[in-house]
Amino acid sequence: MITIADYLLTRLEQLGVKHMFGVPGELNLAFCDAIEDFKKIAWVGGCNELNSLYAADGYARAKHSLGVSLTIFGPGELSAMNGFAGAVSEDVPILHIVGVPSITQQKEKSIVDHTLGDGRYVFDAFSNAAQEITYLQAILSKKEEAAAKIDKILVDCISWSRPAYLALPTNLVTEKISSESLKFPLSRSQTQNDPAAEEFVADRITSLFAQAVAPQADAIVLVDLGAIRHNVLKEVYDLLKRTGFPVYATPMGKTAIDETYERYGGIYWGSALSSPEVVKAFAEAKLVLSIGSFQGDFNSGNFNNNIPTDRMIELHADRTKIQDDIFPGVGMKKLIPKLSARLEHLRHIATQIPIPKFDNFVPQGGSEKITHEWLWPRVGQFFKPNDVIVADTGTAQYAIVDVRLPKGSDLLSQMRWASIGWSIGAALGACLAVKESEPRRTVVFVGDGSLQMTVQELSSLIRTGVKPIIFVLNNSGYTTERLLHRESEQRKYPDIAQWDYSGLLRVLGDLDGTASRSYQARTKKELTELLDDEEFGNTKFIQLVEIFMDKLDAPWALENWPQRFVPTRALLKRRIA
Amino acid sequence: MITIADYLLTRLEQLGVKHMFGVPGELNLAFCDAIEDFKKIAWVGGCNELNSLYAADGYARAKHSLGVSLTIFGPGELSAMNGFAGAVSEDVPILHIVGVPSITQQKEKSIVDHTLGDGRYVFDAFSNAAQEITYLQAILSKKEEAAAKIDKILVDCISWSRPAYLALPTNLVTEKISSESLKFPLSRSQTQNDPAAEEFVADRITSLFAQAVAPQADAIVLVDLGAIRHNVLKEVYDLLKRTGFPVYATPMGKTAIDETYERYGGIYWGSALSSPEVVKAFAEAKLVLSIGSFQGDFNSGNFNNNIPTDRMIELHADRTKIQDDIFPGVGMKKLIPKLSARLEHLRHIATQIPIPKFDNFVPQGGSEKITHEWLWPRVGQFFKPNDVIVADTGTAQYAIVDVRLPKGSDLLSQMRWASIGWSIGAALGACLAVKESEPRRTVVFVGDGSLQMTVQELSSLIRTGVKPIIFVLNNSGYTTERLLHRESEQRKYPDIAQWDYSGLLRVLGDLDGTASRSYQARTKKELTELLDDEEFGNTKFIQLVEIFMDKLDAPWALENWPQRFVPTRALLKRRIA
Ligand SMILES: Cc1ncc(C[n+]2csc(CCOP(=O)(O)OP(=O)(O)O)c2C)c(N)n1
Ligand SMILES: Cc1ncc(C[n+]2csc(CCOP(=O)(O)OP(=O)(O)O)c2C)c(N)n1
Repeated sequence: MITIADYLLTRLEQLGVKHMFGVPGELNLAFCDAIEDFKKIAWVGGCNELNSLYAADGYARAKHSLGVSLTIFGPGELSAMNGFAGAVSEDVPILHIVGVPSITQQKEKSIVDHTLGDGRYVFDAFSNAAQEITYLQAILSKKEEAAAKIDKILVDCISWSRPAYLALPTNLVTEKISSESLKFPLSRSQTQNDPAAEEFVADRITSLFAQAVAPQADAIVLVDLGAIRHNVLKEVYDLLKRTGFPVYATPMGKTAIDETYERYGGIYWGSALSSPEVVKAFAEAKLVLSIGSFQGDFNSGNFNNNIPTDRMIELHADRTKIQDDIFPGVGMKKLIPKLSARLEHLRHIATQIPIPKFDNFVPQGGSEKITHEWLWPRVGQFFKPNDVIVADTGTAQYAIVDVRLPKGSDLLSQMRWASIGWSIGAALGACLAVKESEPRRTVVFVGDGSLQMTVQELSSLIRTGVKPIIFVLNNSGYTTERLLHRESEQRKYPDIAQWDYSGLLRVLGDLDGTASRSYQARTKKELTELLDDEEFGNTKFIQLVEIFMDKLDAPWALENWPQRFVPTRALLKRRIA
Repeated sequence: MITIADYLLTRLEQLGVKHMFGVPGELNLAFCDAIEDFKKIAWVGGCNELNSLYAADGYARAKHSLGVSLTIFGPGELSAMNGFAGAVSEDVPILHIVGVPSITQQKEKSIVDHTLGDGRYVFDAFSNAAQEITYLQAILSKKEEAAAKIDKILVDCISWSRPAYLALPTNLVTEKISSESLKFPLSRSQTQNDPAAEEFVADRITSLFAQAVAPQADAIVLVDLGAIRHNVLKEVYDLLKRTGFPVYATPMGKTAIDETYERYGGIYWGSALSSPEVVKAFAEAKLVLSIGSFQGDFNSGNFNNNIPTDRMIELHADRTKIQDDIFPGVGMKKLIPKLSARLEHLRHIATQIPIPKFDNFVPQGGSEKITHEWLWPRVGQFFKPNDVIVADTGTAQYAIVDVRLPKGSDLLSQMRWASIGWSIGAALGACLAVKESEPRRTVVFVGDGSLQMTVQELSSLIRTGVKPIIFVLNNSGYTTERLLHRESEQRKYPDIAQWDYSGLLRVLGDLDGTASRSYQARTKKELTELLDDEEFGNTKFIQLVEIFMDKLDAPWALENWPQRFVPTRALLKRRIA
């Protein structure tokens, strides 16, 4: 026999969870006791619930594995809801555990604190609201069902890479249940493709490839976020290596493919924003094999990424789409290896297909002011293999897409949900996640406005002893807004307060100044010296660098952000001009 | 003709709104332009959406009038949801305006950024979630209906003192509509009581009072939060002055009644936590006239406030309950004046009923350590008439209940929703609200854990130039939890990071140190000197005082927090012992 708390914790541990995030409160304190006693999972208390949810999200993204957050009912869970919805939007597997009132209290419907004070809506309002955000919910109510419900929600969560909501009433935490089923570890349930359908699909794809390589090979692979989330990166690499087809990534799929891989052509960001060579490659390709595609304005360069359906094959976790036909139930995990075998013989032709060069060129000359045009390729040279790079929404996100990142690096960025401030919480989770296995640097880029949203979580970075480098882009406010809505360029509302950013780390926890270093860079020279300083790069401390930039300076993509649905031809020559 | 934006702003201005709070984003920028051009309502940008919602809430509480917040769809509105739910829980009239995608985008159901990326749930998920929290929702979709929908939601919001959610699609902001109806200002719709029912109710109440004063008078009045929210304070005062009955307040009703009023007996916090004299008064009263009562653990001393039904009359905004009978539709706004007239003749008897003395006694002697026992009566002496006092959830909230507050002061505290960190945002709103009319001090009490939740909003206090005094109780973490769950007393999870609190204001915006003052108080002597310093009390600066306290020291009420539903007899003698 085992308590329900320990049952749940054991399951989490079996799934590789070593850190969990959240904020304690009366309704989850007994569970917090259990965590502290359990010892194999470290509790990381956050300054607030939204930041903790972001941390669980960053942890899951960086580890490609389950993240866990814990809050109380009402004020706690609702505080975290934006973070949770972001994980839903971007398929991040998170378990959000909510400590709720006891079953007796729920039945009595007494108007206790943290409720809306309205008879009808005493206990269901919050879980109902959460259900509008996620499909995966388990509301524990009887101890007899607890183990099965926990197991099911966890399997669903990791199998579909979708956030799940688990309500744990106070009275069940220390109830005892059988530990028998713990002997059988949980794993992703993989839809087994129907063999006949899979065979049919593989045949059709094979023949489309055959057509596309004759007389002259022209087929390319495009990798998107779904490939990362649905755990097919190994399969994709194998396909690429065995067949030699050129590969590109979308912005959200960035770093799914090693950006130094010889057959990698860079980022396809639609016809308006990709480099002319990439636009040309996509316009001319006879066939595009898209893996794990994700929709959204940002990822598509504002919906200017259309590829004619008759040249398009889409692989997804749960279906395949070939031209106009959808094959539900034929998932990519099993299909890709089959395609590798079938297409391997095209290697000698596939490797002839030319690919553009993707690299970082630092522009020379110009004034000493730090501009986006200069900053990003320069920072590109600073990165090292295996860096974890976290970019918040804002100019940093637009800019990072065009930077070639080193081998083994991971880019984490919330490109569809786009909630500013996310990076600080996410960095906490990411730092702790990578620390569990190997030493890797975490490098964060965050706008001043975004940092102000979640600044207190710098404190948790200091407290847990992790050592990210945080670049704060101080451009006096919400520059992205000024650019997307030109009417607001000189308005007051995108302004924010000026802070002493380089004073933050000391005040927020590094009281004696021994754990952190803070810097300011106003010129290219100042920043170059810092980036070239070996000690800086070795990250012995948590480090924050305030970079001063012009209020209206922006990355190329943001300055040239296109209208929606512009015909490709109209955009084709734009970037060259 | 007038744009929909200006229509809405004009309505808000007519309702007395002079400041509104929120965070801009692509989906509300055109509306932000309109606000900036409108000029009669000041835009107060927040560091994040939750804090801005808290500010709108504090504004509405301090002004007893409408508060307004603005966010974007998705990440913005969900960030604010906890704050919004708190306003629902405590009947604070707030209009939450959400900038949502255009009607065309909504119809196309294209998977744009800030959505969950899931076909079915593209646009409705968030408003559906909000609907679980509030009943009052208006989703604008056609310009023809905009004026009527705006008017209706505003009238409902102020009439029922309930938060409302308004979705404003980007394409409607600058559409033109008729301005005709603006000539007719909106006002609270008061349910007119059915005259016969009202007469019947008044008769029954009158006869109950007649019984309760013979042979010896024993009837009392108990005022709760509903009296504040539903705008009957004038009527209640009139009743009290004309009849002379003794009056008490609940914790949530604190400062509804001037605490220096001669017939005021202090706080009724149930039988476990009230002073013995108050417990006795309630145990012996033959009749209790309760006005605007609010349920909840905190307000009731953990549900130990029961008064036998046959001695109880409850007045509410929309109904009256006499003993076991409910009279729907007989609201207190019209009923109270009638009762004043009917009961006035009992004045000579009513004024004989004794009342306890409620005052602040500072204990003398003991060590130099600052304890809760000493701190609160001492601070009580520091308050001045008309102070606005803001107490966050935590030890401050338990303690402030027992402090006698000066004439004209207002206590703002979120005693049912109890979301920690609320006070910093709320203080911003409260300071700006009172600044609109007369100079009043705002004095905030916040725990270290609560402050860490929302610390960035100190920056907006500095930026708007308001000058609250903020007392930060540094007791090394979540003391309330350690007390409510003794098992956690020595646990690690209630610990939080140590910050340099007195360094915060400078770093968060007072860069040259001219706008703020920060202090630390480790001993009674240090704090006494500060409180006695006239310059400190005159609040020429924004001031933060860090008070060092023991990790396990707590106010009497928290230390003695009772079990639920304990028989009154068992509790009666407790506080004396
Ligand atoms: C939670 C949330 N609130 C508001 C927005 C709208 N928004 C998008 S970009 C942006 C400005 C970001 O400013 P900053 O972080 O300073 O970056 P910059 O654009 O200046 O680089 C805002 C407010 C958002 N995406 N998420
Ligand atoms: C948003 C939110 N998260 C968590 C809680 C649970 N909670 C209630 S009191 C408390 C501790 C408050 O600590 P602090 O502000 O330091 O005040 P203290 O009790 O130490 O005076 C917590 C975490 C809550 N009420 N609201």
